[in-house]
Amino acid sequence: MYDSIALVGATGAVGRIVLEQLVQREFPYKKLKLLASERSVGREVRVSGETIKVELLEPDAFKGVDLVIASTPDEVAKEFAPWAVAAGALVVDESGYWRMDPTVPLVVPEVNPDAVDNHSGIIASPNCSTTQLVVALAPLHRAARVRRVIVSTYQATSGAGLPGSEELNDSTRNALAGKVHPPSVFQHPIGFNLIPQIGSDKHEGYTSEEMKMVYETRKIFGDDEIQVCPTCVRVPVKIGHSESILVETERPLTVLEARQLFEGADGVTVIDDLDQHQYPMPRDCEGKDDVFVGRIRHDISGGTGVAFWCVSDNLRKGAATNAIQIAELLVRRGVTAGGKS
Amino acid sequence: MYDSIALVGATGAVGRIVLEQLVQREFPYKKLKLLASERSVGREVRVSGETIKVELLEPDAFKGVDLVIASTPDEVAKEFAPWAVAAGALVVDESGYWRMDPTVPLVVPEVNPDAVDNHSGIIASPNCSTTQLVVALAPLHRAARVRRVIVSTYQATSGAGLPGSEELNDSTRNALAGKVHPPSVFQHPIGFNLIPQIGSDKHEGYTSEEMKMVYETRKIFGDDEIQVCPTCVRVPVKIGHSESILVETERPLTVLEARQLFEGADGVTVIDDLDQHQYPMPRDCEGKDDVFVGRIRHDISGGTGVAFWCVSDNLRKGAATNAIQIAELLVRRGVTAGGKS
Repeated sequence: MYDSIALVGATGAVGRIVLEQLVQREFPYKKLKLLASERSVGREVRVSGETIKVELLEPDAFKGVDLVIASTPDEVAKEFAPWAVAAGALVVDESGYWRMDPTVPLVVPEVNPDAVDNHSGIIASPNCSTTQLVVALAPLHRAARVRRVIVSTYQATSGAGLPGSEELNDSTRNALAGKVHPPSVFQHPIGFNLIPQIGSDKHEGYTSEEMKMVYETRKIFGDDEIQVCPTCVRVPVKIGHSESILVETERPLTVLEARQLFEGADGVTVIDDLDQHQYPMPRDCEGKDDVFVGRIRHDISGGTGVAFWCVSDNLRKGAATNAIQIAELLVRRGVTAGGKS
Repeated sequence: MYDSIALVGATGAVGRIVLEQLVQREFPYKKLKLLASERSVGREVRVSGETIKVELLEPDAFKGVDLVIASTPDEVAKEFAPWAVAAGALVVDESGYWRMDPTVPLVVPEVNPDAVDNHSGIIASPNCSTTQLVVALAPLHRAARVRRVIVSTYQATSGAGLPGSEELNDSTRNALAGKVHPPSVFQHPIGFNLIPQIGSDKHEGYTSEEMKMVYETRKIFGDDEIQVCPTCVRVPVKIGHSESILVETERPLTVLEARQLFEGADGVTVIDDLDQHQYPMPRDCEGKDDVFVGRIRHDISGGTGVAFWCVSDNLRKGAATNAIQIAELLVRRGVTAGGKS
């Protein structure tokens, strides 16, 4: 176990849940530090009966810290992670900045737990839309080798943090009153609208969010031949990302076999009874840790693939829960900043 | 031209737009009848300066009528269309009931105008989600033969008529107030939620809405080898259906060629500049007649296909506009109930 842990970005949308989960899941620690940018310094946070003051995120803040769980923008992660590593701490980072660094394992505990053993001080947690995708695909990949994935996402506004959720509320209230709320978080008004762009123009007409799904999926499965064609869309939903997925495997899977593989997989819950109107929906998945799968059916476009619908709480398994699960995995395996203990 | 025309279902969400469009597009007629169910009988509607009383939809109502444009539920269309045909009228029907009848042409004027020549009194307009799909695919099909389509939809609540739009408003207002509005039109609360079911369980885990996209696409293109794998999802948007489409053609198309084909196609408008945040969105397409296409890019999952994003006003081109365009086509070609005039 780690005596001293630090949370970076503890006052953000994801950081708050990390803190809640630390307590609820009884993550073992003796000392807890909360670090944040200047704006939040001095704020007091109650953590299981104790009041903790938020301290400034600066190089000296990591002295004596064993484990860091961080949820910050990329540019913050770029700066602070080397400070933490230099101070001898092990960093679990949820930002996008370190994920594709070849020295940084990108980990989803249900999928590639072994990857944590070979780190250089930083372990990254994937982007929310990738995490739920790989958790759902993992049992199919183990059984039949995933070759091609065509995925269209329906992503909640909380993917853009607390300001994203607030903008959805404001934009919707204004739309109901026949007014337009000028967007600031998103590129366009999101109330009762869809925005087929998440992130910036990155590669041949695909956005940065879409390319994360391509690159991160390959890295997590350790298989550069997996092909992914993603379309990422922001929808007026607060919490819970949804994905319409068509997967083609090397060995064709029947629907029955795919369902059994999903049912037997860690972290996956199947909700699939169309006749009874049972399938995963954002409103039912909010606040839950699993990845939910339904609408499982064979590809009727002549392929040998399986089509399905996948929903998960983007703040939980998509972010906070996966980070805590990585930390729990590190405890179980006795991984420290210096290697295996 | 037709001397006497009748609108059936003129007080519904689509019927109102048909009426507006008849006037705006200066559709030629001498006499206009409005027919509806008992509930709406006697209601007075102003049409270009004239007040028209809604009359009862009954067998005798079609006496002397040359052309009927109808927007009703399937079970109503099943009953009234034979009355109209028996009275010697030609029926343009927007319901789902007659679409797959082999004696009934299923027509999108930009795609298969010739089909109207061979009718038995009824001409059907496709389902909203199919119409925008085939308008977008038509230029690619003509140039390179469409073989396979993988499509995930993001469908507006107005697809379920005025009650659908009202339920979105009520459900959203309640959600903003932390309450749940019990659903009646949809299977589940739709405010800030997604429902991955439109229609009923129809075929091997696919819904009736999804199978319409399969069967209607084949019928309109007259090509039973076109393979379609659809996923239809209701989203909290009022007007405007969106579709994430991956299309594979017999002769592979480059992105440039696909864009040029879209740009040259009747009824298609390209909005495609990701860097400038320009792409079709429901809020911009509302009240417009075209099918809007953007995010055009090559399939990076190793296939030879083209991926794109497609939005259209489901009440306009998805319903009312297509019906009026069919009627205009019938006028141009001199088609009557008895055949070519």
